[in-house]
Amino acid sequence: MSLVLNREELSDYMHQIFPQVHRDFVVEDLTEDKITMRLVVEDRHLRPGGTVSGPSMFGLADVCVYAIILARKGRQSLAVTTGCSMDFMRKPDGERDMIAHCTLLKLGKTLAVGDVLMFSEGSDKPVARATMTYSLPPEGSAAAAFG
Amino acid sequence: MSLVLNREELSDYMHQIFPQVHRDFVVEDLTEDKITMRLVVEDRHLRPGGTVSGPSMFGLADVCVYAIILARKGRQSLAVTTGCSMDFMRKPDGERDMIAHCTLLKLGKTLAVGDVLMFSEGSDKPVARATMTYSLPPEGSAAAAFG
Amino acid sequence: MSLVLNREELSDYMHQIFPQVHRDFVVEDLTEDKITMRLVVEDRHLRPGGTVSGPSMFGLADVCVYAIILARKGRQSLAVTTGCSMDFMRKPDGERDMIAHCTLLKLGKTLAVGDVLMFSEGSDKPVARATMTYSLPPEGSAAAAFG
Amino acid sequence: MSLVLNREELSDYMHQIFPQVHRDFVVEDLTEDKITMRLVVEDRHLRPGGTVSGPSMFGLADVCVYAIILARKGRQSLAVTTGCSMDFMRKPDGERDMIAHCTLLKLGKTLAVGDVLMFSEGSDKPVARATMTYSLPPEGSAAAAFG
Repeated sequence: MSLVLNREELSDYMHQIFPQVHRDFVVEDLTEDKITMRLVVEDRHLRPGGTVSGPSMFGLADVCVYAIILARKGRQSLAVTTGCSMDFMRKPDGERDMIAHCTLLKLGKTLAVGDVLMFSEGSDKPVARATMTYSLPPEGSAAAAFG
Repeated sequence: MSLVLNREELSDYMHQIFPQVHRDFVVEDLTEDKITMRLVVEDRHLRPGGTVSGPSMFGLADVCVYAIILARKGRQSLAVTTGCSMDFMRKPDGERDMIAHCTLLKLGKTLAVGDVLMFSEGSDKPVARATMTYSLPPEGSAAAAFG
Repeated sequence: MSLVLNREELSDYMHQIFPQVHRDFVVEDLTEDKITMRLVVEDRHLRPGGTVSGPSMFGLADVCVYAIILARKGRQSLAVTTGCSMDFMRKPDGERDMIAHCTLLKLGKTLAVGDVLMFSEGSDKPVARATMTYSLPPEGSAAAAFG
Repeated sequence: MSLVLNREELSDYMHQIFPQVHRDFVVEDLTEDKITMRLVVEDRHLRPGGTVSGPSMFGLADVCVYAIILARKGRQSLAVTTGCSMDFMRKPDGERDMIAHCTLLKLGKTLAVGDVLMFSEGSDKPVARATMTYSLPPEGSAAAAFG
């Protein structure tokens, strides 16, 4: 129940494995079962009308859960997303970053589940919620993905 | 943003409208955006192996969100469930009641969303999570259901 | 990619393992990747207003996917439901049985996914849809459930 | 129950409203309740390892359902995504386009639901499934979004 990577180590590792998008995401806070992630909103994340796009919010939620699994399981982790559910509740503000608060609800041997609430920075009304499920390969296994 | 029904009024009204199942559910706590509900687990809620059944957990989550909508909108509310997502994370203990903590994430004009975390009483490890979405009829509308 | 249990064997086995509810469910048709299941609607499945309850529809969808996993993997299968998503689209007719058409989308080593469309008998407008995900224990494993 | 826009009109309109991404998506086929959409996979849709990214698949599913609503309701439609559920079942092939087959399960006054199965071109094993729900503004209403 302790972190294998701290916030700095996790950030460094994400920059290595996601070279194209690492500037999009900033780990703001990290504990054993919670992570706060910022999406640095830029033009490419927007939809006509100036709102943050659905795929960008999906990506933010997915990165949150993946990152906290990495922080708990370590760099060799081969977790793959197997499911998601999302609810879009309010219009995001395209001129503000998005802040995601993620709680790791379960980290089992083969399955992890994380819940994410997303806000436009400065607001306390949630823009969207997501639950992401990950399949975890058995330890020592090379293959694994996609159950 | 205030309650139209308090805990006692909500409990009384639920007993009227759900005569067959009102003994199953007890409103433990109620605020403007949170409700805690107990499922009094009995044999009919169990599956072989002594765990609480999936349909019972679905019902618990659904009642939570419906109840807090009633408490906020009043007895005339005609909300209907339009969607749900659930994740089952641990084995519930069939010898204990289930306690559901529900947060109302959105109560708009036509759509409500509530999140529910369910525990076996006495444990702090969530057994299941659910999100329920409800369609709300326009005020003054008689028809409404099923969008 | 072939059936381990045929329709009669599957029905017999379901009657053994679900003694309390076996009369509710009838396997109408079974192929390698599809199953059709009838919910024999009775008073206990209804909500005030004469519609089939949400928990009853959840149960129907869950049984469909569990049954086709059994038919493919055999009686020793220890599959457990890990997730579900449902959309409720039309009011079910409480005076008719419900017919569920389920497609098994994936049957992997550790994960199965099935999709279910539910109708009131005699109508071609879907009442609800559901996706159920199951975790499958590694073969030869005794424990397994809840990843 | 008829189309307001045919395939060419729908394609033209999508090019207008999604100038940045219109080259990504090609409407392959369109009927009253089904649409087939191609995602022209390019480098920007890929993840390390050469698979199509989750956000790209989310975007594909979302565009499918939005497009068929447009085709049925017309250009003035103000539909907004309110929910999604997805299951990721197999590894997509990053060297092939993705083909999405979408069925419109419900098109009500205030709610639409579409189901999407996604394949790597040339394979009959589904890579992912998605259900997207949209909120539809009351006709004649200017505002509307986010219920």
